[in-house]
Amino acid sequence: MQTAHSIEEMKHLRSKCRGSVGFVPTMGYLHEGHLELVSQAKNENYVAVVSIFVNPTQFAPHEDFKAYPRDLDRDLTLLESAGTDIVFIPGDKDMYPADYDTWVEVKGITRHLEGRSRPTHFQGVTTVCSKLFNIVEPNKAYFGQKDAQQALVIQKMVADLNMNLEVIVAPTIREKDGLAMSSRNVYLTPEERKSAPVLYKALQLARDMHAKGESDAILIKNAMTKLISSVPAARIDYISIADIGTLQEVNDIRGRVLVSLAVKLGKPRLVDNIILG
Amino acid sequence: MQTAHSIEEMKHLRSKCRGSVGFVPTMGYLHEGHLELVSQAKNENYVAVVSIFVNPTQFAPHEDFKAYPRDLDRDLTLLESAGTDIVFIPGDKDMYPADYDTWVEVKGITRHLEGRSRPTHFQGVTTVCSKLFNIVEPNKAYFGQKDAQQALVIQKMVADLNMNLEVIVAPTIREKDGLAMSSRNVYLTPEERKSAPVLYKALQLARDMHAKGESDAILIKNAMTKLISSVPAARIDYISIADIGTLQEVNDIRGRVLVSLAVKLGKPRLVDNIILG
Repeated sequence: MQTAHSIEEMKHLRSKCRGSVGFVPTMGYLHEGHLELVSQAKNENYVAVVSIFVNPTQFAPHEDFKAYPRDLDRDLTLLESAGTDIVFIPGDKDMYPADYDTWVEVKGITRHLEGRSRPTHFQGVTTVCSKLFNIVEPNKAYFGQKDAQQALVIQKMVADLNMNLEVIVAPTIREKDGLAMSSRNVYLTPEERKSAPVLYKALQLARDMHAKGESDAILIKNAMTKLISSVPAARIDYISIADIGTLQEVNDIRGRVLVSLAVKLGKPRLVDNIILG
Repeated sequence: MQTAHSIEEMKHLRSKCRGSVGFVPTMGYLHEGHLELVSQAKNENYVAVVSIFVNPTQFAPHEDFKAYPRDLDRDLTLLESAGTDIVFIPGDKDMYPADYDTWVEVKGITRHLEGRSRPTHFQGVTTVCSKLFNIVEPNKAYFGQKDAQQALVIQKMVADLNMNLEVIVAPTIREKDGLAMSSRNVYLTPEERKSAPVLYKALQLARDMHAKGESDAILIKNAMTKLISSVPAARIDYISIADIGTLQEVNDIRGRVLVSLAVKLGKPRLVDNIILG
């Protein structure tokens, strides 16, 4: 496993790669969800590149950029075991020099869901992914379905800007009790951890109601809200049933919809989703 | 000379290119300035690609998008003579489908000069160049010094987003009387055409004053204003002496400065510039 600590070093290593390159951009503090993406990247390409970069521009000033969990030694051990070929660990000032001034923005679908709660978040995500894609020049880039809107936004950017790569979205990896794996789960107290599977239970409830013929999105969202509210520590940010293309809320479920939710459980804010239809 | 009329066709032709690719993005209605860029692209690369696309997103609603001069047959003849290998002529809907929603923006330096008069202009330029660069994948892209701020903005975007190409800026090509070549010169009436060299004369005046030791930018701009005002039909949009890096106005000329101006002469709005220091 080779390690690049600067953009220049990464571009140099990339220039020596032969065959297709699979790329997994991460913010580190890796869990099984990331490692599944790395396995898939390795299976489908000659070279698997993973970046570890806690991207400051996708955090708002009041968010947890400084507190975001970091453990580089553990990450490198995990990536080596997973068969990673190149790890790219750029510094903040290499990625964003003092006079940095260019931004990539997807409008429309970034106004809803996460974008409504975190209005500057996706501009940070699309900007850093543009940079990483230009540096790593992957044939395929891998993202998890857990951050469903992020995956849709990246796909939209890649299509609109005619970028030369394929975006692969892999299924959410869950703990045995259904909790979606996330680096932020480490913030949960033991008690919060016990009640955290309620997010996935609410999504399963939506799936069950829909399977039994219910197409009224309001009714389903009300049932989900009721279930999550049974956990006293849970603070619902949003529960959404939205068109998979536009991410606008639907009243009547007809085509494919994204059922998603964001819930603050004590300190961390957890997100999860499923697709119906 | 091969011609690609769609993004898909261009990507296909690009995939067959061997060796370095030089790229000249244009809006057509070519003049000697463009053809000099094509010659340079051809001299410095194995393959020269030229795009012809009147980019709607860099025109404001009140500007001359529809009236912008077009003559494809003439352009193709000129490009063939200049040794162009591939001409890329995409359609509006291929470049901007109905649900198009992604924008690339350089902040800071786009707030001044042209950006102050045309606030949405550079977002259109950087977005279309991002797309064209991803489609054509050039090793070098060629721009004219006549649109000095455009060249600086593109260079900034390429550096900030770590794009894999070199931006080459070639000297302004002028008519014998000093008028900078521009597709918009065709709008000038014979009388306006006669007085149009006053823009370059004003720039030469600035160069002379600076060469003789004058470092007071206000004084130089006043002299330029006086000279241009001697042409009754001239309406000055701006006369600027700005730091070459930040494009902020300077009072005292010390380092390298961009002396630039935009003047409406009858219908067309003409721009020109020189660099001092």
